[in-house]
Amino acid sequence: MPVYKAPLRDMKFLLNEVFDYPKHYASLACGENATPDIVDAILTECGKFCEEVVGPLNQVGDEEGCKFDNGEVTTPKGFKEAYNQFVMGGWQGLSAPEAFGGQGLPASMGLLKQEMMGTANWSFSMYPGLSLGAMNTIYLHGSEEQKQTYLVPLTEGTWGGTMCLTEPQCGTDLGQVKTKAEPQADGSYKITGTKIFISSGEHDLTENIVHIVLARLPDAPKGTRGISLFIVPKFLPDANGGVGERNGVSCGSLEKKMGIKASATCVMNFDDATGFLIGPENQGLECMFTFMNTARIGTSIQGVGAAELSYQGALEYAKDRRSMRALSGKKEPDQIADSLIHHADVRRMLLTQKAIAEGGRAMLYYAARLADHMVEGHEQGDTKKAESYDDKLGFLTPILKGFLTEMGFEAANHGAQVFGGHGYIREHGMEQIIRDTKIAVLYEGTTGIQALDLLGRKVLLMTQGGAVREFTLTVANFARKQLTNKRTRPFALELLKLTAQWNVLTVRLMLAARKDRDAISAAAYDFLMYSGYVTMAYMWARQASVAASSLASGEGSESEEFYNAKLATAEFYYERLLPRAQSHATSMLSPTSNLMQLDAEAMAFTS
Amino acid sequence: MPVYKAPLRDMKFLLNEVFDYPKHYASLACGENATPDIVDAILTECGKFCEEVVGPLNQVGDEEGCKFDNGEVTTPKGFKEAYNQFVMGGWQGLSAPEAFGGQGLPASMGLLKQEMMGTANWSFSMYPGLSLGAMNTIYLHGSEEQKQTYLVPLTEGTWGGTMCLTEPQCGTDLGQVKTKAEPQADGSYKITGTKIFISSGEHDLTENIVHIVLARLPDAPKGTRGISLFIVPKFLPDANGGVGERNGVSCGSLEKKMGIKASATCVMNFDDATGFLIGPENQGLECMFTFMNTARIGTSIQGVGAAELSYQGALEYAKDRRSMRALSGKKEPDQIADSLIHHADVRRMLLTQKAIAEGGRAMLYYAARLADHMVEGHEQGDTKKAESYDDKLGFLTPILKGFLTEMGFEAANHGAQVFGGHGYIREHGMEQIIRDTKIAVLYEGTTGIQALDLLGRKVLLMTQGGAVREFTLTVANFARKQLTNKRTRPFALELLKLTAQWNVLTVRLMLAARKDRDAISAAAYDFLMYSGYVTMAYMWARQASVAASSLASGEGSESEEFYNAKLATAEFYYERLLPRAQSHATSMLSPTSNLMQLDAEAMAFTS
Repeated sequence: MPVYKAPLRDMKFLLNEVFDYPKHYASLACGENATPDIVDAILTECGKFCEEVVGPLNQVGDEEGCKFDNGEVTTPKGFKEAYNQFVMGGWQGLSAPEAFGGQGLPASMGLLKQEMMGTANWSFSMYPGLSLGAMNTIYLHGSEEQKQTYLVPLTEGTWGGTMCLTEPQCGTDLGQVKTKAEPQADGSYKITGTKIFISSGEHDLTENIVHIVLARLPDAPKGTRGISLFIVPKFLPDANGGVGERNGVSCGSLEKKMGIKASATCVMNFDDATGFLIGPENQGLECMFTFMNTARIGTSIQGVGAAELSYQGALEYAKDRRSMRALSGKKEPDQIADSLIHHADVRRMLLTQKAIAEGGRAMLYYAARLADHMVEGHEQGDTKKAESYDDKLGFLTPILKGFLTEMGFEAANHGAQVFGGHGYIREHGMEQIIRDTKIAVLYEGTTGIQALDLLGRKVLLMTQGGAVREFTLTVANFARKQLTNKRTRPFALELLKLTAQWNVLTVRLMLAARKDRDAISAAAYDFLMYSGYVTMAYMWARQASVAASSLASGEGSESEEFYNAKLATAEFYYERLLPRAQSHATSMLSPTSNLMQLDAEAMAFTS
Repeated sequence: MPVYKAPLRDMKFLLNEVFDYPKHYASLACGENATPDIVDAILTECGKFCEEVVGPLNQVGDEEGCKFDNGEVTTPKGFKEAYNQFVMGGWQGLSAPEAFGGQGLPASMGLLKQEMMGTANWSFSMYPGLSLGAMNTIYLHGSEEQKQTYLVPLTEGTWGGTMCLTEPQCGTDLGQVKTKAEPQADGSYKITGTKIFISSGEHDLTENIVHIVLARLPDAPKGTRGISLFIVPKFLPDANGGVGERNGVSCGSLEKKMGIKASATCVMNFDDATGFLIGPENQGLECMFTFMNTARIGTSIQGVGAAELSYQGALEYAKDRRSMRALSGKKEPDQIADSLIHHADVRRMLLTQKAIAEGGRAMLYYAARLADHMVEGHEQGDTKKAESYDDKLGFLTPILKGFLTEMGFEAANHGAQVFGGHGYIREHGMEQIIRDTKIAVLYEGTTGIQALDLLGRKVLLMTQGGAVREFTLTVANFARKQLTNKRTRPFALELLKLTAQWNVLTVRLMLAARKDRDAISAAAYDFLMYSGYVTMAYMWARQASVAASSLASGEGSESEEFYNAKLATAEFYYERLLPRAQSHATSMLSPTSNLMQLDAEAMAFTS
């Protein structure tokens, strides 16, 4: 069973050496408390909590799952105690505004916390994770009264939150939402309908649960422009802000799922439940999607977490388990056989996991800086700044969400593979990571939806290729500076080729889409994966550059092995994984006819 | 939930039109009963049995799993009745020798049966599947008395069989086997040891279970050359060939697994159990591995089956579920949204599944013809013929087992992806296919082991590249004939390029391996996948060629849609999947240093 150990060395390398977070925090208005000492103390404390409290509940959570009995949901043994410790530690409000009881630290600090907690135990981390979604929505669109009533206990963590979007007939296509909201004389609404796949919809961790619900007002326009957003608490707040009368919302059942079994995935029935409008009428979807970019970085953490945890498990096993002899000759002649780690093919799998975990983490931290600036722009009422950073982030988030969750799933599979047949056995915990991670490519917008968002919306529709031009300019400027360094020159040359190719591909797809609208959907997945490989290549070059400089300057003498490992992993990534980008490049330019010409009825012939 | 429908149209296309099985069977000594009418009747009957009896138990088998109580194992509800029907139908002996009660039909007929049964319900199919392994071993290496005692009830199916290889400390590396065999005065042996991961080790389907066990004689040489093979029945046969005294072998527990939950995976304890030597002393591994090529084709079926079943489920859902509008404009204007099947990205996933299922099936049937010849050579005592076909098969089997199980797993993942979030929910049955199929890349030699067998043993060590030269010659000869046909010319050109490249890659790896033995293990996985993509490309060209001829000759007018679909799928395969071969070509030639340079201790730094 993989035992989570917070990868603090790597986290600090990225924060302090690659992305210079100390300077970044010093530049932020909300960063005055995020001094290097404080950040360090928080990381250490959070890592300890995740290693000692959250991680050990991962396997038992999977075995036991959530239990449903007559509308009540019980989380697995130990979850309530761990959650109470989480509340006592003030972890929920880490990046939340001080005005509502939070610690007011930068958004990126919250992401670091989410990463560690999610890697240690993704199911557990979903309870506070969903609350964050509700908190953001209320903070951005709620009235002052709504903020005081709901945001304070949510920030404390004594109340939980959910996002109620999906219905049986629709998930991606929210224009089909049917849940109704009837206005009442007192200004409230009666909400009626069924929502499915509601994470944390019902559980025993908090006093109250605040549902954010998409529903339709009477006579609202059809489709996406007729959806409004409502707060529907499980218990109506009483006059003192405490828990009052039970509301007409209840859990009908728990879904039986492939994984994340300790996360309660609920069918929620709203039966004349009292709800309160949040944000303007019929603009529910826009409100729901504000800060969506930040939320999606949160989901992409799952890919990095899966790669990290699975790598930790597989690496330990590969050092421990002995099988066969290395082809290049006995490595441990006194033993009955050599450890798995001496076999090149096993190393291929381990290094793939390592490259994904560390390269993916770099992508997260790179994006998190942008998120900090975006939030600051918003806080300062500087719309232009907020939008500018939201655009940069908007380009990266589908890449992060789509690519990192796919790669995390791949990494989880490699981890089980290193274990051989034992990888299939539940007690080793490796197959759980596969099952838990599979949801990541499906929820919060499937990979296909991320791909359409990237190519169709962010790249072609919104910026006519400008998003790619802007990002590749940054990458190419960095690469050019690396050309003179012997260690990083090969990476720089490859990056320069790729940035040029990325632009060419974009233009060719833009031209193709003018003649044939299916060209976008046909190419989107390959374009997303291509973009992911190149972005990760940029991240590995950034890491390699710092490692090379530190080694050259002699400053890195204490960490020589660490820096050499970074350079070796970068080499592995460029030589063994990055070539995949080229097969995506070829596929994305292939004719749409190979996808569209076959009639639906001619897809199968049974007799 | 995918409801299995036997893909008889596609099976008959491959058998009758692509690979001319009628002529093939007519040429075989054992083929006189395999007339087109009989083959047709058997396929229809078997399809019906799988659709109506075996398939409907797939989901309940997963939900219920096998139960263990005090040494006894109970299979899920309905399994015993279905198995009885299987026995009554004489299905177990379909390809078994008539001398022992079988029907004596060609080996390939058994494979067709296994394909249908395994696709409908892989877990169920494992019980008779493991028996086949035991039957083969006894048939090839048993004494006449052993054959009469064990082979007759095994062929009937009233007794079951297992293969007991793996122990806690070793799976791949069988040289580490510790189970002991002590010779007794009466010529039998006392077997003592623990075997794990024993499929069908204990269950309630048969009167008796015949274990084929790897164990060591006292003073046997260390390693793989000191292992012998024993028959250890659960109940010792009595004088009349019935079930006698209980033997000292028992099931200690069932493994909890990711999937194939209806297949009993047992820890088997041998405690002074009576065993009978089979084959020569200390040559157990060689005996076990005779006919291994045929057995491995059996395992590769799982990849094709997963692709087929998942495709059937996903295709139906894609036609049924409505979400969003096609980018090229409304396709079903009267409906609230268009069906999923109108979205190019969904078609990409469906066509990937289709290309894998049908291309993989073609690979199976291509190899099965070789297996028929190999078995015939063996039956006729024509060692040269048997060996010649075993060599051809030996080159293909790691490709089939390694590549098709990896691709089947990919296809199963696409199937869940088409369902979006619903793909993660157990009741839809799509995630079960992922869990069930994951074992296929792990057991019977992991993908990494198949890759080493292919590149290290079959290609470099045994034939110095000759195996690739021989196979690519066949492919190139076929391709050259297709150059004059407008419809198949693009495939032929690509195949000619690839066959040349495959040889170049082989030579380059051979040279690299002379200097650096790690080069083989480092390149093996990419070489395997490359070989798989090219072999599947050959199969798609074969299918396209038949489809194009039939359309051109007008003979195919009744099946015009079917043939056009074949050509369209071939196009999809060549344009969207085959480019991946190039990224494997690049990776396999990259330096071994990117895998080997990192010290094991420098693979992770926790602080």
